[in-house]
This record gives sequence, structure tokens and C-alpha cells, in this order.
Amino acid sequence: MPDCAILLIHCPDQPGLVALVTEFVHKNRGNILNLDQHVDNDLGHFFMRIEWELGEFTIPRGKISEYFATLIGDAYGMHWQLEFSETKPRMAIFVSKASHCLYDILQRYAIGEFDCEIPAIVSNHESLRGVAQRFDIPFHYCPITKENKVVQEEKTAMFFEELRVDVIVLARYMQILSDDFCRRYENRIINIHHSFLPAFKGARPYHNAFNRGVKIIGATSHYVTADLDEGPIIAQDVAHVSHRDGVNDLKRIGRDVEKRVLSKAIYFQLQHRILPFGNRTIIFN
Amino acid sequence: MPDCAILLIHCPDQPGLVALVTEFVHKNRGNILNLDQHVDNDLGHFFMRIEWELGEFTIPRGKISEYFATLIGDAYGMHWQLEFSETKPRMAIFVSKASHCLYDILQRYAIGEFDCEIPAIVSNHESLRGVAQRFDIPFHYCPITKENKVVQEEKTAMFFEELRVDVIVLARYMQILSDDFCRRYENRIINIHHSFLPAFKGARPYHNAFNRGVKIIGATSHYVTADLDEGPIIAQDVAHVSHRDGVNDLKRIGRDVEKRVLSKAIYFQLQHRILPFGNRTIIFN
Amino acid sequence: MPDCAILLIHCPDQPGLVALVTEFVHKNRGNILNLDQHVDNDLGHFFMRIEWELGEFTIPRGKISEYFATLIGDAYGMHWQLEFSETKPRMAIFVSKASHCLYDILQRYAIGEFDCEIPAIVSNHESLRGVAQRFDIPFHYCPITKENKVVQEEKTAMFFEELRVDVIVLARYMQILSDDFCRRYENRIINIHHSFLPAFKGARPYHNAFNRGVKIIGATSHYVTADLDEGPIIAQDVAHVSHRDGVNDLKRIGRDVEKRVLSKAIYFQLQHRILPFGNRTIIFN
Amino acid sequence: MPDCAILLIHCPDQPGLVALVTEFVHKNRGNILNLDQHVDNDLGHFFMRIEWELGEFTIPRGKISEYFATLIGDAYGMHWQLEFSETKPRMAIFVSKASHCLYDILQRYAIGEFDCEIPAIVSNHESLRGVAQRFDIPFHYCPITKENKVVQEEKTAMFFEELRVDVIVLARYMQILSDDFCRRYENRIINIHHSFLPAFKGARPYHNAFNRGVKIIGATSHYVTADLDEGPIIAQDVAHVSHRDGVNDLKRIGRDVEKRVLSKAIYFQLQHRILPFGNRTIIFN
Repeated sequence: MPDCAILLIHCPDQPGLVALVTEFVHKNRGNILNLDQHVDNDLGHFFMRIEWELGEFTIPRGKISEYFATLIGDAYGMHWQLEFSETKPRMAIFVSKASHCLYDILQRYAIGEFDCEIPAIVSNHESLRGVAQRFDIPFHYCPITKENKVVQEEKTAMFFEELRVDVIVLARYMQILSDDFCRRYENRIINIHHSFLPAFKGARPYHNAFNRGVKIIGATSHYVTADLDEGPIIAQDVAHVSHRDGVNDLKRIGRDVEKRVLSKAIYFQLQHRILPFGNRTIIFN
Repeated sequence: MPDCAILLIHCPDQPGLVALVTEFVHKNRGNILNLDQHVDNDLGHFFMRIEWELGEFTIPRGKISEYFATLIGDAYGMHWQLEFSETKPRMAIFVSKASHCLYDILQRYAIGEFDCEIPAIVSNHESLRGVAQRFDIPFHYCPITKENKVVQEEKTAMFFEELRVDVIVLARYMQILSDDFCRRYENRIINIHHSFLPAFKGARPYHNAFNRGVKIIGATSHYVTADLDEGPIIAQDVAHVSHRDGVNDLKRIGRDVEKRVLSKAIYFQLQHRILPFGNRTIIFN
Repeated sequence: MPDCAILLIHCPDQPGLVALVTEFVHKNRGNILNLDQHVDNDLGHFFMRIEWELGEFTIPRGKISEYFATLIGDAYGMHWQLEFSETKPRMAIFVSKASHCLYDILQRYAIGEFDCEIPAIVSNHESLRGVAQRFDIPFHYCPITKENKVVQEEKTAMFFEELRVDVIVLARYMQILSDDFCRRYENRIINIHHSFLPAFKGARPYHNAFNRGVKIIGATSHYVTADLDEGPIIAQDVAHVSHRDGVNDLKRIGRDVEKRVLSKAIYFQLQHRILPFGNRTIIFN
Repeated sequence: MPDCAILLIHCPDQPGLVALVTEFVHKNRGNILNLDQHVDNDLGHFFMRIEWELGEFTIPRGKISEYFATLIGDAYGMHWQLEFSETKPRMAIFVSKASHCLYDILQRYAIGEFDCEIPAIVSNHESLRGVAQRFDIPFHYCPITKENKVVQEEKTAMFFEELRVDVIVLARYMQILSDDFCRRYENRIINIHHSFLPAFKGARPYHNAFNRGVKIIGATSHYVTADLDEGPIIAQDVAHVSHRDGVNDLKRIGRDVEKRVLSKAIYFQLQHRILPFGNRTIIFN
């Protein structure tokens, strides 16, 4: 895997954008490995992901952003995010008691499917300390009550800053984060909700699915925003169920969907393939 | 295909029900071809579908219901429905302008996949008359306005009575039926809604799905009740979509799901495999 | 939908290809609407699809190919195919007796989902003449025997030349085309095979699937080559089945998969989204 | 969960079988909780699963089999298997180096989704010892060479006998078991093969899938027989892939399918829901 730069760009659409960006890379001797672009015609908005080898690139790594801004980005009102394949994202995980998503994440991490560092697992329960230990990841017990919630969150946020956390995963974490915390990590907190949103928002989705008599259940991974279960959706999937499945069956079948859908979102995130825009996501895959 | 009786039963659960019913069939020289039962433990309710050959059955066809009531059904508080495989259900279809579900239904009918009679296609538009004619099915133009709605529905209901219609399919019919009409054909009107209910009830589900930025779209076939899009669900399925799909793509991809999900429900219905109970369905398949 | 050019390119990979092509389009005042590229690292091969508005493009339509060859294509050993969105592909359909794929195709054609002309439906049986007539498409009965096969194929080929046929669809056509015919329409004949290839090649796949006791059945659309069921795969899908499904159920459930998978391939083909390479396809979607 | 008996029966089909069995249970005061039957009309064979509460059942647990044989089973040429819900199956696991299936199994075991004992994990490599230890399961390193294969297998078989192993799971075990071993545990060894069988039997299915250019990959769980990858199929599933996916992507995406399909088979097995017959399985679910 060569050393690469990845640029995620979006801006109002106008002619010539692709040519401009590819020329910028090519003229400075970057070899384009992947290019994917998308124009949302309804919104008149342009989205692009470009990945190029840095081997002979003439602009130094630390100057790419500045040069891009000066030569192209500012003039065209672009928003962009620059990433380097060599820099491993640092991912913290929040959990409560359910272990299925956590195991799924850690197994993928252990075999190198998730190319990241995991500096901390934080939980409001002690139950999964053992799991964290088995994978040699620091576990932090951080109990939440109505009284201490604000303080605990503030401490966690400071702690994450110290750890230089890039992305946060809520792996069936049963607490609601404050608006403040959500804003601090805008589009960097990934949650798994155990329903095919927008159906069955909020608590007890499997009970509600059972009571509605649905024939499919699902799971949704999404960025967390201040509006509960309303953030940009990253991935969704479903499983077929029948009248034979009681609430506990829905939970059991649902766990399979949850872990798959959450891990899919994490994979995209770690590969810098997601470009959130408003309440939607562009997934370059 | 031998001549068979099909009995759909439900009642409060209690020990011995399966043995009682199988004994009734067996002692009277019916050969059981299929038996499927289900107990909903939460509701304490029992459901059963049993199908047997009538060849040597000693109770005459016209007396089965009476005998069953006297010997078993009444004593155990059973609700039941008796069907005969030799009697083809008579199915009327409502359509508006969209042709994909109608073609799908009629092609299946034409090759014998749907074992039924189709005595009438009724529409509030003229557009699909040609399709009906191609399959030699009487087409009735029945325009609906605010003013004539009540009268037109009443006329249609009488007309359906004349035609001895057993089941009604709304194949993307863009009118809401009155409570009265729904009640008259309780659990015999099948609708296709173009979303995975309970998400995106009501009008313009694809627009709403697009605006929410979902990664799956779906369709739901359900019995029609007085509560719009709230009736018992029969079948659901989804398709994966991406940021590349605009509203028109969602509609195009959705049509595939709609016709498949509607035809699945019709197939179950015609085979007497659906037992509706409250707002859910038991599908014996 | 503006007037567009679509260029499908492939060649040995080398640095700078994307930039070169985008520059060619941009400098000549073409507005790039879509660009998708792919590098197969194992094969060291480059693939690209680019679509641009012709409105202000300075190179005349009839000269684009020549200019592209001279300025870029020849120097880089590119193979390319140039299409125009305004030119409707002309698609001929072969059928035998099964109607499900044909109805599915014609319904999509009738509502404009398939943007093409259908100048002819050819069949070795009379059974589907009525279907063709209902959609006002010329139907040609072309019976095949061992004796007349070569002659009939030759006649059909000449007839298709006359009709300027661009693409041929085998919608459950139960005859094997000669190597000669296949070569004449290389990568332009789309077949639907009723199994998930490479499993159950050849005749009676549903019987073989049943005998093997599989829990999924499938369908595969692919380009036809001289090797039976070995051509480049375009699309595949499956359906879950159970021990309850006999051969006839597999056929019934399979029909749904077949028509969906065939129509998906046709859609890609008509949108010039398929780039065949060796025995695989790049699908730009 | 009450104490239950589960009877899996198959025999040549004949009238009255369901009634006979239900009467046997009912007359002896067993309360039927679940009954599912299936007749394969092509084979003229009858299959049944019946589950009843033992609470007031008048035949003692240890005598049920004898009574059933005398009163019904022998007279009708039935094969049957009697299980008790209170008896936890004892499941041994073979692994090599890949950890994804093992983690998936052990996580489900840890949370009680798999209701069994796991007395041993056996491997021809040391790599997964740590995983076994984390879940407090005895790990046995059992290296295999051409020379020691027969001896090692014999030792393992004796060891499993000692441990009273009921079912064996090959969780991506990269060794082929001898015919002898397979026969000893007929229909009790579950393997996961990383393709949708019968496609891509044998070694390197992902490489072969890539080379064939398929658009779906899959996995198959099946009972192991002396014929490699030819045993009765229990469960299958697939994932969609594209030209963008190289062999390593197929492996990554495939791991998700493998673990899901293997765990599904194990779940059915532990619930005594599988009735193998010839080279097919009846799954009562």
C-alpha cells in the first residue's frame, strides 16, 4: 500500500471542477489511484473523492492544503478534507452491556481489517471490561447518573482530546450524548440504531417492530447529531422475520444486522470514504 | 392437484388443540397433506392451518363447517375459515395510471401462477384500459371526484357483490377507500405501499426517503383498514440505494420491489395461507 | 436530459490518464457530468467512463472520435467506445415460450424506463406473438430445426443488419446460437441463465438445484460467447428457498429473479455503463 | 422454558401419520408446543418435528423411545431421533488460523444465544489459543502432518468420545477429515465452505470467484460427508460484489457471510431443527 493523499471535496457545482482538481494533482506529479465524483442535480452540488500516490508529488505533505486552498479551493468555494493513508485514525468506543458489536469490531481490528488505533473503550457499566482486556485495550468505567452526566461527559471529552481521538463509535451505548458533545465531534460519532430508520426511532425498537407486525427488521448506522436518531445515515440493512419470531427472536436476529451495519460504517469511515452533507452522506465505495 | 379442504383456525391457546383437529380429519378419513400451527406465547393464542384431501372424506363438503362447529369449534371458542382448493377465488383489481404492478399480476395470471378469476379491473383513469383488454379482462372506468366519491364507491361495492368478488387488490390505486368500504371487505383488500412501513406513511414516500437520505427503500403489502397504511402487514422487502440515486431512480428501483411484494401477498392470499389477527398476519408458507 | 457524449475507455494503466482525458474534455468546453474510473491492480489495467455535455463542445460530434484518437487514444494504446445520449440503441429480442422476461422488458419499455427502440422480436415458437402485438412490436416466427438452423441464423443476422440492431437480448430463448453469430455480436448479446453461475450450467438448472438440495437459487445475466454459459457476467441475484419448495416452486420463485436480473443488465447496457474486459465486466453505476 | 421433548421423524408417506403421532402425545398428557410436518411429494416421504411439554407426560423420559417404537414407530417404518430441551448439546470446534467464525461462535455462546457446552477447541495451529483462553475453553493443539494424520484423528476421535461430544463444528478448519471420521459423526459435523456451493468447490474459492468475474459471492454451511463439499446443505447466503473488489475484498466481504451462515447452521443444530435426508436437509424453523 503506497503512501497516499485522499482529498474529499464538495462545493456548488460548476463546469470544469474535475479537470481542475485532476490537473492540480497531475501537474505536481501525483499519480491518481482513485477518482470518484458525484453531482447532485437537485441540489446543484458537487462532491469528489480523489486519492493519489505521494511518492513523487512535488508539494510537501504539510503544504498540500495551503497550496490547494490558494490555487483552487478558495476560488471555487470548496470545502475539503485532506487525509493521508499513512496516518491511522484513532477510534474510541462507547459501550454499555451488549457485547456483540464490540466483539465484531475488535475481531476486525485484531486481524487488520480495521486499520486504526483504539486508544480507549469507555463504558457506563463494568460488564465488558473483560472483553477490552482480552484485546489489550484500555477500558474506562464511567458511570452515568442524572447528577454527574454533564461532568462525566466533560471529563470524557477532555480525555478524548488528550488521546487525540478522531472518531467515536457508539457500539450499542445506551446513553444519549449532550448536544454539546455531539457538536464537538460533528460527523465523527457513529451510532448503530437497531431499526431501519426513520421507522422505530427512540427506545425499544424491537418491541415496537413486534407490535406493528413487520416482516422485516433492520439496523441503521448514522452520524450522531443533537436530534436523536436523525443524523446522516451511513449504512442500513434488514433481515426478514416472520410471525414465529417473538421479541427475543427479533433481538437475536437483529444483533446480526446491527454488527454488520455498524462495522460497514466504521470501515467506510476509516477509509475516508464518507462525505456528509446536510442530513445525507455520499459514500465513495 | 387433488380436491382439498383448507381450514384456518385461531383461538385462545389450550392443551390438545392440534390433536383434536387432526383426529377430526383423520377419523373421518381425510388425508392430511399439510399442517402448520403456531402459538403466540405473548398473546396466549393458537393459530393453525390444515389441508386435507377430500377424496374419501366422509363428511360432505357442504356439512364440514357445521360438523366442525358442533364437534370442536364452538366448544373451544375457535374462529375458523374453510376453503376448498377447487374453488377459484375471484379477484378484482383497482388501478390508477402506473402499469408495473398490473402487468406483473396479469402475466402471473396468464401463465397460471395465480390460480384465480379476475372478473374486473376498475380504474379512476382510462390509461390502463388497453392493458386490461390485452388480457381480455373487463375494464371499468370509474372516475372519482370529491363530489361523486361516495356514490361511485357504493356502485363499485354493489358491482363487486354482483361479481361475487372475494378479494380486492389495489395495484398502485391512488384513491383512499372509505371506512365503510374497508369494513365491508375486511382483510380482503390488499394494498401495496411504496415504503417499508411504518416509515414514510402517506403520500410521496420516495420523496421523503430521498430527503431523509436513506440507504434502503422498500415496499409493503398489507390489508387495508380504515387507518391509512396501518393495516396488517403481509409482506415487505427492500432494495439498497445510494447517494447516486435521485428521486426518479428511487421510483424506478422501487417499482421492482413493489410488484414483487404485492404479487407475493396475492400468492399467499390465493393459497389461503394468511391468517390475520389484530394488526398482524400469520403466514403459513 | 441534455445532449451528451459518453466515452468508455480501457488501456494498460499508467500515470496521468484521468488528467489527460478530463483535460481533453474541459479544454474543448465540454462540461463533465459523470466520471468514474477503475484500476485493476492485479491486471495493471485502467478503465474509465466519462460523460459530458455537448452543448458548447467545440469539436463536432462526427469528429470527436478522430480527435480523441489523434490527441490521446492512439498514443496510450487505448481502446474506446463513443456513444451519444441522443441516439437510442436498437434492441432485438429472442424468445421461446416463457413470457415473464418478455413482459417485464416490454412494460419497462412502454413506460420509458428502457430508452431504446425495439425493432423486432424473434421466436422459434408462435406462442408469444400476441404479447408482441399488444406492444406493437413486429414479431417474427423463425422455427429452428437441426436442418435449417444455419440458414435461419444467417437470415436473422442479415435481417438484424438491415434493422441496424445494436444489442440482442435472449429473454429465455431456448436455442444455442452458433459461434459465428456470437462473434458477430460480441459483447452485444445478453442472455439470462436461470442459475447463479458458475453453478448449474447448461440444461435444467432448477432440477439440478433441487437435487443438490440448495438453500438459494439464482439467475445470471451475461454476454453470450461461443462457450455456453461462460461469457462475462453482468448481474446476478438470488432468492432463498427451503425444503418446502419443489422444482415447480423453484421455477416460480426463479422467474422473479430472472426477470429482475435480465432487466438490470439491459438497463446498464442501454445506458452504456458496461465495459467488458476478458471474461469480466466493469459496471459503472 | 419448560422441560420439553423433541421428536424428529421421517418415514415413507402414508395417510394418518400426523394424527397418530399427535394422538400419542396428547393421550399421554403431553402438551404440544410446536408441530411442523412436510411431505416431499416427489420422494413420497414424510418428515415431522414435534415438541411437547413433559410436565404431566405420563410416560417416563427414559421410556419414551421404547413406547414410541412399540406403539407407532416400528409399525410405520419410522426413523426418529428423540431430544430433550434440558440436555445441553456438547459441541467441539475445529479451527486453523482464521478467527472470525470462532469469535462469532464464542460471542453467541457467551451471551447464551447458543445453548450448549463447548468442551474443547482443537486446532492444527497455535494461533487461536488465546481466543479460546479468553472464553475459558480448553484449547488443544493438534498439529497435522501427512505422517501423523491418521493417528492424530484417531486420538481426537477417542478424546471426543471421552468428552461425549454431540456435534462438531469446523470453523474454517483447513484440514480434510478422513472418511472414517466423517462416518463416525455422520450428520453431526458442520462445515462452512466459503462459496455458494455447488459453485467453487475445493480450494481457493475466492480466487476462483474473482477469476470468473462473478457479481455475488457466498458461503454454505453443510454436514460433512466423505465427498468433499458434497454433504447436505444447511444454510447459504450471498453478498453482492463489484469489479472494484479484488480477491482481498472478496475475502473480507466473505468473512461476514461465512460467520453468519455458519452460526445460523449451529443455531438450527442446537435447537434440533435439522432433519437430514439423503443429500438434503429439512429445516424446521
